[in-house]
Amino acid sequence: MKKIITISRQFGSGGRSIGKEVAEKLGYAYYDSELVLQVAEKTGLHPSYIADAGEYAPGKSILSYAFSSGISPGSMNASDYLWSAQCSVIMELAEKGNCVIVGRCADYILREREDCLNVFIYADKSYRAKHIVERYGVTDKSPEKRLEEKDSKRKTNYKYYTGRNWGSVENYHISLDSGVITPEKCVDIIVELAK
Amino acid sequence: MKKIITISRQFGSGGRSIGKEVAEKLGYAYYDSELVLQVAEKTGLHPSYIADAGEYAPGKSILSYAFSSGISPGSMNASDYLWSAQCSVIMELAEKGNCVIVGRCADYILREREDCLNVFIYADKSYRAKHIVERYGVTDKSPEKRLEEKDSKRKTNYKYYTGRNWGSVENYHISLDSGVITPEKCVDIIVELAK
Repeated sequence: MKKIITISRQFGSGGRSIGKEVAEKLGYAYYDSELVLQVAEKTGLHPSYIADAGEYAPGKSILSYAFSSGISPGSMNASDYLWSAQCSVIMELAEKGNCVIVGRCADYILREREDCLNVFIYADKSYRAKHIVERYGVTDKSPEKRLEEKDSKRKTNYKYYTGRNWGSVENYHISLDSGVITPEKCVDIIVELAK
Repeated sequence: MKKIITISRQFGSGGRSIGKEVAEKLGYAYYDSELVLQVAEKTGLHPSYIADAGEYAPGKSILSYAFSSGISPGSMNASDYLWSAQCSVIMELAEKGNCVIVGRCADYILREREDCLNVFIYADKSYRAKHIVERYGVTDKSPEKRLEEKDSKRKTNYKYYTGRNWGSVENYHISLDSGVITPEKCVDIIVELAK
């Protein structure tokens, strides 16, 4: 029985929806944007900074957010501060009980626990491009460019804080191509494995 | 319905046994050592050369084998010759009907087909070390050293002929940690997905 399921995912792979449905089917708590709010509370950082920098940027300037949140960056390294807050919130949530956690390097943060199932969801570029346009609409940038930028930021952030390669098979217990396997079957497989 | 299942695997992960059982459960043909014999017939190369070099060595010297098989290496590049024979045998086998193919870069060779399910089986080092000692016994080399050498050769060979990174998540539709998921559940998941 796996109490905690962490889901890491390529942008546009539908990993978040898969995580949400897994949580519903298992009756587990689901953490994603809620996590952001809890970290915000703990750190005093602005939620929009956390949502962005928490997965995407080591060393990203905090200045633009600092004004809106009223905190002063001073000499503190905002990314490292955020990372450590994120670690402790994720560890607390894992202690609280059964849950699904999407993103935020949770697979790495909870690596000492034996009750975690670590999942990676990915898909090929054309599938993901279609998916992000359906979900987030069209922007000035091509969908391919948006995918590249987002994935590259996740990769850099993961490497910086964990020393591991994001999307490398060894970090996870199971990796699923949602474009081929289909999101529905991904959900079924993860639910079955958690039991 | 997936007609062809390719299984790539880390040494000692039990991927071969998993493949065999999947084939039995689905009533599919199973190719592994048989593949070697078919390639041998096609090429005139010695089966022991094929078994070894077919997955492990671009540019490996054919001399030691040439004497026993009676062929003359001359100026021919034995690895490339073997690779091209292996490709055509695998494509022929795939044409013949439902099958499970273990190793031999079959995921790459059959990449144009849409009826393939590409699987990668891996596990952490301690699990695999235990497994190879149980299966192949103790040798002068430590199990860890044996794992490293074998995986590194597979990696080099795969990269050389496919241009891809062996064990990189994107090459496969599903990747499974047999040490955590258990071989039995790996079999069930693959069988279920093939249907």
